[in-house]
Amino acid sequence: MTESNDADRTQTSGKYVEPGEFKRDQNYITTRITADGRDGYPVEPGRYRLVVSRACPWANRLIIVRRLLGLEDAISMGVAGPTHDARSWTFDLDPDGRDPVLGIERIQEAYFARYPDYPRGITVPAIVDVPTGQVVTNDYAQMSLDLSTEWTAYHRPGAPQLYPEHLRAEIDEVNAVVFADVNNGVYRCGFAGSQDAYERAYRRLFDRLDWLSERLAGQRYLVGDTITEADVRLFTTLVRFDPVYHGHFKCNRQKLSEMPVLWAYARDLFTTPGFGDTVDFDHIKRHYYEVHRDINPTGVVPLGPDLSNWLTPHNRETLRGTPFAHGTPPLPLPPLG
Amino acid sequence: MTESNDADRTQTSGKYVEPGEFKRDQNYITTRITADGRDGYPVEPGRYRLVVSRACPWANRLIIVRRLLGLEDAISMGVAGPTHDARSWTFDLDPDGRDPVLGIERIQEAYFARYPDYPRGITVPAIVDVPTGQVVTNDYAQMSLDLSTEWTAYHRPGAPQLYPEHLRAEIDEVNAVVFADVNNGVYRCGFAGSQDAYERAYRRLFDRLDWLSERLAGQRYLVGDTITEADVRLFTTLVRFDPVYHGHFKCNRQKLSEMPVLWAYARDLFTTPGFGDTVDFDHIKRHYYEVHRDINPTGVVPLGPDLSNWLTPHNRETLRGTPFAHGTPPLPLPPLG
Repeated sequence: MTESNDADRTQTSGKYVEPGEFKRDQNYITTRITADGRDGYPVEPGRYRLVVSRACPWANRLIIVRRLLGLEDAISMGVAGPTHDARSWTFDLDPDGRDPVLGIERIQEAYFARYPDYPRGITVPAIVDVPTGQVVTNDYAQMSLDLSTEWTAYHRPGAPQLYPEHLRAEIDEVNAVVFADVNNGVYRCGFAGSQDAYERAYRRLFDRLDWLSERLAGQRYLVGDTITEADVRLFTTLVRFDPVYHGHFKCNRQKLSEMPVLWAYARDLFTTPGFGDTVDFDHIKRHYYEVHRDINPTGVVPLGPDLSNWLTPHNRETLRGTPFAHGTPPLPLPPLG
Repeated sequence: MTESNDADRTQTSGKYVEPGEFKRDQNYITTRITADGRDGYPVEPGRYRLVVSRACPWANRLIIVRRLLGLEDAISMGVAGPTHDARSWTFDLDPDGRDPVLGIERIQEAYFARYPDYPRGITVPAIVDVPTGQVVTNDYAQMSLDLSTEWTAYHRPGAPQLYPEHLRAEIDEVNAVVFADVNNGVYRCGFAGSQDAYERAYRRLFDRLDWLSERLAGQRYLVGDTITEADVRLFTTLVRFDPVYHGHFKCNRQKLSEMPVLWAYARDLFTTPGFGDTVDFDHIKRHYYEVHRDINPTGVVPLGPDLSNWLTPHNRETLRGTPFAHGTPPLPLPPLG
């Protein structure tokens, strides 16, 4: 297990290490599941369970990537409820409050199964080794790349290449600034402990959104001509912007719906199979507003915004780029029930 | 002194008298300044001082009405700072922290000068009798009507009739529902102590805003063909909607700028002399976000929204109605400095 160099982090709380500045804890369980099994966990269909919350933007990435690549049969998924207490996410959506495969009430149990004194944040997404009930990894940034690169033998026919070799340098570069200024930037606004720290985070966020608007004005996707990992990572923040970050985190220069390029880009992805069908706005709003009592003491969850505008025409088809190149979109989700 | 039947209230905090429901304290000092002086306070230019905060929507009404009627020379104005502590609004904007006319640091002193044990909220707007230093009234709903009806001898030439006899019943009717659902409705959203109470307030607010949109779609002003007291009262809430109520009070179905009729109506008034020139967005934002630590514990004041759109064309001139009928707008404010 080595420390990750990536600054991504799955928990939604964090530490204040500089005056007023929100600093995301960057320690993960970085064991990898690989085709060659060099960390002791080889790729093996049916062996692992991805645990997510639909509320969480970092987990949302994994749900999307699994869908796009058609890994649903190879890697099962457990879904924790939208809220959690100090002791971690719980399987309160399941009929008896236990994940039906892992048999546990809290994802915390899978962390303790591997490290009885696990001292850090209990986070989603996490991948659990079903036979032992132990968490393998919660290093979700590496996790999503590994779904693309290590699980290729189990990708569906027509699956996109979300992290193609020839674009990796550019994807990594975009991901790094999007993480710092946008994905984590919204948290740095919302959890700022001082006016100064907030204002710095706000300016970085909106400067970066302006930069992204400019980049996306003439091309349909962030890197290359098709959907990549970079689009997945930006999308999960954008889709939460108006329901949560705009008000709850004070990211309020404009709503996403008032930034024309990004708004059209987000709607384009939202209506692409594998994206919008993973989004639960109710879970998203309840999570942030009910859990963060330090910035929302009443726990009241706003009724707004009106979300019907997500399905208005985006007109991005005329730009350079097609979602899946020579591949195909994933099949629609089966009907509920 | 009698109790007012009007439910308006100047303080921005309140009591929770039903489970979860915000209830505005409705007790005022209801002494009136009248032409006949029947309460002991006759209309007399130079004798009274209106004390306001530019942050406060209830005080903002008085600032607007005084400007529209040209009462600046007859009634002087003291301006408290945007924030206050438990002991009331202070004159911290004045160079030595004292109102230059009243010589006091806190408006509280003028309340205690009249009632040494004054037990209720210390609120703005308030009118102070300068010779005695005593508050005459803080019953701002009556106060603004009295500026229109009792101070007529000192109105400027060309002053509008904001409360004309033949429209009073209709103005009162509109004011009553606008107060309950909108002016006070935003507070009922923001200070709701339960999800249910919040949701009831939110639905009443947006139902009423829809009703107002419909009413204002074909006519330029709320009642009759010119600006009246009803427009003043709606305006002071609308102008605070996007900067404060949308995020801070969770009134977030849409921004004002996303409700086309009300947005055009608000911009029309904003660019009418006597309205926009009374608005200080900085004071407004600092007041709500810094004072209400119960719903904004960090006290961080959002940098947004971008307010440059207030000056975009509103195209309401083509509708039935003219702002001042046969009268004239007030003169522009003199330049600062």
